Amino acid sequence: MHQTNKLYFEDLVVGATLDLGTRTVTEDEIIAFARDFDPQPFHVDAAAAAQTPFGGIIASGWHTCALTMRLLVENLLLRSASLGSPGVELIRWTRPVRPGDTLHARVHVLEVRPSQSKPDRGTVKIRTEVNNQHGEQVMWMESFGMFARRPVEIERG
Amino acid sequence: MHQTNKLYFEDLVVGATLDLGTRTVTEDEIIAFARDFDPQPFHVDAAAAAQTPFGGIIASGWHTCALTMRLLVENLLLRSASLGSPGVELIRWTRPVRPGDTLHARVHVLEVRPSQSKPDRGTVKIRTEVNNQHGEQVMWMESFGMFARRPVEIERG
Repeated sequence: MHQTNKLYFEDLVVGATLDLGTRTVTEDEIIAFARDFDPQPFHVDAAAAAQTPFGGIIASGWHTCALTMRLLVENLLLRSASLGSPGVELIRWTRPVRPGDTLHARVHVLEVRPSQSKPDRGTVKIRTEVNNQHGEQVMWMESFGMFARRPVEIERG
Repeated sequence: MHQTNKLYFEDLVVGATLDLGTRTVTEDEIIAFARDFDPQPFHVDAAAAAQTPFGGIIASGWHTCALTMRLLVENLLLRSASLGSPGVELIRWTRPVRPGDTLHARVHVLEVRPSQSKPDRGTVKIRTEVNNQHGEQVMWMESFGMFARRPVEIERG
């Protein structure tokens, strides 16, 4: 595999930001995800949702996480030497996500920490912010990713 | 709607625990979820996954969250006066989830806090622990839920 532009641990420096682009979510997608994983009335039933304080169907917060992950994978992780994630520091769902909303995600590198036990990798803490098409924040989260360190190239004389 | 046994904020007391039952996850489900939301090689491609430190396909951590949410919804939230969630305090993915694994979730009430601004509701902080069929922990998380307070019944003489 040609990996000239692959991002390693060393490339993810504190303060770096990356625009992850956008993703529009439809009512059908919201209901399908929620039927599988979060079948609360305000996620799956338009009539019932209209009677709640939300006033209509809203996306499961876990669906917003999953859609954000897709943007993170496409725009950062598949371009990088990602080794998975040990976890998430926090998630805040700050506004409802509604059918037809276009989510726009941006990621910021908060901390980098070379592994003490495994010299081939390090952990990166990121903050991911998600706004809707009105520029209103719908979610933000802080999470960890593990990334391989750039392999040392051996000069061949 | 008949709500005799519905759980309100007052029913979720600190120290209460609830077994959320089990859910088995198949390789097809792991790959389908990951193709939609987390298409990293170790989640979608058996041959590529075999070459990673994971040694084979593992579930996206977000899939584990979503499956756990399903158990939480079926066994707690649909029986309760749930008003949604402001967020998650932390998630730790402590072991890989593999095809065929049976997840077993339990929830513990950590804190309860009546709303200062809205007297009809309160926030409950829970810890959810997920083990596999070998009794090994694969994930734990701490999250918040909002629940309506029990309505005051007016005696009619």
